[in-house]
Amino acid sequence: MNSTDLQHQCRMSDIKKAPVPSEPPPSYDATPPNPASPAPPKKGAPRPLPPLDLPTLNLLRGRRTILASASPRRKHILATIGLTNVEIIPSSFEENLPKSASPFEYVLATATEKALAVYKQEINNESKGEPALIIAADTIVVSNSGDILEKPRSEGQHIMILKSLRDTGIHRVYTAVACMAPLESARDPGYALETAVEETAVKFDPSVTDELLLAYVKTREGADKAGGYGIQGMGSILVEKIDGSFDNVVGLPLRVVLKLIEKVIERSQDADVLESGLIEEEEDEEEE
Amino acid sequence: MNSTDLQHQCRMSDIKKAPVPSEPPPSYDATPPNPASPAPPKKGAPRPLPPLDLPTLNLLRGRRTILASASPRRKHILATIGLTNVEIIPSSFEENLPKSASPFEYVLATATEKALAVYKQEINNESKGEPALIIAADTIVVSNSGDILEKPRSEGQHIMILKSLRDTGIHRVYTAVACMAPLESARDPGYALETAVEETAVKFDPSVTDELLLAYVKTREGADKAGGYGIQGMGSILVEKIDGSFDNVVGLPLRVVLKLIEKVIERSQDADVLESGLIEEEEDEEEE
Repeated sequence: MNSTDLQHQCRMSDIKKAPVPSEPPPSYDATPPNPASPAPPKKGAPRPLPPLDLPTLNLLRGRRTILASASPRRKHILATIGLTNVEIIPSSFEENLPKSASPFEYVLATATEKALAVYKQEINNESKGEPALIIAADTIVVSNSGDILEKPRSEGQHIMILKSLRDTGIHRVYTAVACMAPLESARDPGYALETAVEETAVKFDPSVTDELLLAYVKTREGADKAGGYGIQGMGSILVEKIDGSFDNVVGLPLRVVLKLIEKVIERSQDADVLESGLIEEEEDEEEE
Repeated sequence: MNSTDLQHQCRMSDIKKAPVPSEPPPSYDATPPNPASPAPPKKGAPRPLPPLDLPTLNLLRGRRTILASASPRRKHILATIGLTNVEIIPSSFEENLPKSASPFEYVLATATEKALAVYKQEINNESKGEPALIIAADTIVVSNSGDILEKPRSEGQHIMILKSLRDTGIHRVYTAVACMAPLESARDPGYALETAVEETAVKFDPSVTDELLLAYVKTREGADKAGGYGIQGMGSILVEKIDGSFDNVVGLPLRVVLKLIEKVIERSQDADVLESGLIEEEEDEEEE
């Protein structure tokens, strides 16, 4: 990461004449429309994109997919891969595990307990039917000295947290994701569970002034966020660089989530195959 | 950056009872409202945040601020710091500088020429008045072997680009920003210009399958983007990690832009002070 500032001061006479525009090169947007594929999007117009055509995501369409989190940011991230009809059922699990565990263990256990609590509540839901997939996540911010940072409790504490993040080099953000799917076999009820923890290092810009931190705190954007800033909003002006996944800092590492969904759905179906005694045939087939 | 996948398969009897929720700790959101400060936002509700209260941004309010780019992503990024009434005037500058220059020089020259073209067009705009600030930017994606990647011109080429990005380790994204402000002195017309180039390294997930790349290409999200992917959307599922600024990859490094705006506005005013013969007095004053 590298930023270079250059300074100029010029007079009117320095302005160069803009070159005459030439014929623009043929663009991908401008290729003739193929009736079999969707129309190319128009530049500048709002563009409804075709959804991501993946077998697992197609399988989930029209089935109950639950996000065990009230975070609008997580819901928004899931929507980018076409999971737009996700039910929001915040977990009743109280985030009170002992912080004496390592941050890694703490965040993983919390996400897993959140998923389990919603699974337990919804698995026998007679009116809606059992869920096809439950996604739970927990995000923690860990200071350079290894402490888990809470949400700020006052404006004064909020400024203290941000000053400390600015002055102590890098800190780390961990998001744990837990995906659960009920086994498809009716004979042997149970579930498949897949989890992952993703780590991103974040470095604040050490030249951020106290005045800018105060102005940021006054916007209240970071007031309800662990670590006291939202990297996807104004908080971006405090951050010099990250090393890792961006949406992990926002609260849901999408690439990892997609992998977990694919694994957990596959395993919930494998169990079904096992029940039906078809496992040997399946193993002989090679995946394309 | 570190991701760990954990596998479980459990039965109904494994589900642990969720602990009884205890009294939640007092939250920053729950502090009594102070009549002098804005009301704390409600959880879950859409939250209009107070704007970032910085002298330079306040000074721009109600004055002509021009973004010399048609990119809705850049407009969105500027809006996060309260620059919501930005005029969009895409530059007529044709991006045809020789690519034999270094990527750094190429992107810097392109952003600068874009700003100059809009400045020249708008500085004598009699109906709207002269602009207070012009922001121009150019973003390029550079392959591991140093080639500047264009927008894909066909679906086939699009897949080739993404496969190459996946298989060649890291690539780099450079955004150059040029900010211009007319000198305030009426006696000596001219402008202040501040520029910067920001670099972010991006690493695709090498385990992404050809099928996922094809599914991504079919969504057309990346069809109009240099490098063929949008990191802020579905393209996120292709990216394992970045090293640097995220919004730089999206097309506008906000932290750098804010610094440039502050510098260029200050310098456009300094020139005014110089003209008025007040420079010595100003220099004696210490900045708070």
